[in-house]
Amino acid sequence: MTWRKSLEENRIYNFNAGPAALPLDVLEEIRDSFLNFSGSGMSIAEISHRSKWFDDVINDAIVRTKRLLNLDDTFHVLFTQGGASTQFCMIPMNFLREGDSADYVNTGTWSAKAIKEAEIQGKIVNVAASSEDKNFSYIPKNILFDKSAEYVHITTNNTIKGTQWASFPDTDGIPLIADMSSDIMSRPFDAAPFGLIYAGAQKNIGPAGVCMVIIRDDMLGKVPDTIPSMLKYTTYASKNSMYNTPPCFSIYTVQLVMKWLEETIGGLGKMEQINRQKARLLYHVMDSGDFYSGTAETDSRSLMNLTFRLPNEDLENRFVDQALENGFGGLKGHRSVGGCRASIYNATTLAAVEALVDFMRTFEKQNG
Amino acid sequence: MTWRKSLEENRIYNFNAGPAALPLDVLEEIRDSFLNFSGSGMSIAEISHRSKWFDDVINDAIVRTKRLLNLDDTFHVLFTQGGASTQFCMIPMNFLREGDSADYVNTGTWSAKAIKEAEIQGKIVNVAASSEDKNFSYIPKNILFDKSAEYVHITTNNTIKGTQWASFPDTDGIPLIADMSSDIMSRPFDAAPFGLIYAGAQKNIGPAGVCMVIIRDDMLGKVPDTIPSMLKYTTYASKNSMYNTPPCFSIYTVQLVMKWLEETIGGLGKMEQINRQKARLLYHVMDSGDFYSGTAETDSRSLMNLTFRLPNEDLENRFVDQALENGFGGLKGHRSVGGCRASIYNATTLAAVEALVDFMRTFEKQNG
Repeated sequence: MTWRKSLEENRIYNFNAGPAALPLDVLEEIRDSFLNFSGSGMSIAEISHRSKWFDDVINDAIVRTKRLLNLDDTFHVLFTQGGASTQFCMIPMNFLREGDSADYVNTGTWSAKAIKEAEIQGKIVNVAASSEDKNFSYIPKNILFDKSAEYVHITTNNTIKGTQWASFPDTDGIPLIADMSSDIMSRPFDAAPFGLIYAGAQKNIGPAGVCMVIIRDDMLGKVPDTIPSMLKYTTYASKNSMYNTPPCFSIYTVQLVMKWLEETIGGLGKMEQINRQKARLLYHVMDSGDFYSGTAETDSRSLMNLTFRLPNEDLENRFVDQALENGFGGLKGHRSVGGCRASIYNATTLAAVEALVDFMRTFEKQNG
Repeated sequence: MTWRKSLEENRIYNFNAGPAALPLDVLEEIRDSFLNFSGSGMSIAEISHRSKWFDDVINDAIVRTKRLLNLDDTFHVLFTQGGASTQFCMIPMNFLREGDSADYVNTGTWSAKAIKEAEIQGKIVNVAASSEDKNFSYIPKNILFDKSAEYVHITTNNTIKGTQWASFPDTDGIPLIADMSSDIMSRPFDAAPFGLIYAGAQKNIGPAGVCMVIIRDDMLGKVPDTIPSMLKYTTYASKNSMYNTPPCFSIYTVQLVMKWLEETIGGLGKMEQINRQKARLLYHVMDSGDFYSGTAETDSRSLMNLTFRLPNEDLENRFVDQALENGFGGLKGHRSVGGCRASIYNATTLAAVEALVDFMRTFEKQNG
């Protein structure tokens, strides 16, 4: 119980893959204002989305997002529902007309689902590259894209296999569309090549129940009129994401996380430094012996989800169980692949990672 | 400032149309457990939806919903995202194949939107009845439905025009589909004729960000395979609404509201008594003089949204402003129709309504 002692009262070290840890400052602010939001006399869960209070929330979330990502005015920040899974179907619905095709890079479960949801609709998908040959343990390089593709779709970070694009592919002007659910706001990047970026909030930027969509102006011009209102990006862009009642609580939490990123962390450059430091500490444990072994190829390793194995499954189970007893939650690998995984999104503190490293070394000594 | 005095510290009397008042007990429970949900050491906004903690939440929400509505095992309780507006498009997508048609009853803005979202998809809609001839101030009676319709769609309560179906139409076996966003759980009813019931949570059962769908087994059999996963009811039914990450916080709040309905209120029979008492008090003010006049026909009046006018717009503006100064929020009519509206959903207390009645009588004396 050494590690538990350094924890805030009754809280755990949260290494869940999503929903995941949120900054303690953010949680405390929500709690403290929960019966009376911003002097409204109502909870954030009760206020009208047609009120000045909520306008301030959503607009501040947007302004901070644009500032953090250095987005110019050609980009719109939208809030949708239904998670990344609904984006898997909306993207081909909005951007592929009869005869059009899109290039997808298959780097694992989530990419495959994106491909499937396009194909269900009878859309033409070209899998431009895949790492399936090596169990999705790497990110493909030197990909040749079809020049006539309407867009190129990638999954920037793969939560299940623990891989991440270190840099983004050159598509020679074809709009990039990216599922950034598990690494948005974890590092700065140049948004210019992206036609659309989407991210379910529940990993790096908020609670479950809202999906952030960043869309470039020219993409909006491609949306046909013949699709239902709630499935058209133009509906969200023209109504500031309030064509109907938005998920107010989740958007409010995203706003507070953006504020925390700007004011407490100091921006995405700083955030990346911290994230690299956390990942380095954990990968060092895996690389400095035979007990823990990382499953992703070194140059494709994720800074967000660190997947690793122990010498056998019995030890893995014991590791996860003992970790839990000592206050470390979420270290079991995804049910589809087994093994272990430490998800260290933005809100997972360096102190939590240091405590985990210490626990891992102790466990290795006792069981290695 | 007489009325403010009886208020809980810093809270207002909330008459908003949605998002709307939530039970104070529910808000306090959320606040008190916000940093450590159910001994998990995590916030409800942080816990994994694949955990026992969240299984308990969603399953309890479902069990309580079924018990409150007296639903047998042919009904499934699902949680979707995108609000009722996404249901407007999912319903025809799931139940109308080429050549099929559906009957819709048009009782105002929300019915009209439901019709529009079917028509956008090229589906065949028959408007079986409409109250547009009298500005949607009544609920149509003695409707003849098309015997070959796949379903009959109604909006059980019309938030903008202040009307409500007192009883449901006899469809002679055609499945009824109902948008109950603004009156679900406000009264008991016989669910047997309903093939599907849906309700955006943010009026009677929770915060924005989740939509409850109650679907009968036979309807699931009609869903084609060719639509995207997130738009198919079968996806939600086969995965207990957790095909992807559900809106955990909103579902948790729904669970607490169901618990409050069962354990504090004592079920839907009791809830209806209280709702009728609240509505009677307010309609009595409208009917006992010429100053306030209800806009809905008497036999079509809503027990949830009470729409009324004052002698002129200046007085209406003054009424709304003075009410706000005295702690009564949300009394302005919908921006599309003007006038005044008091929304008195389940969580609006009898005490709040009594205070409003007192304020209305005082305002009338001073301005009548």
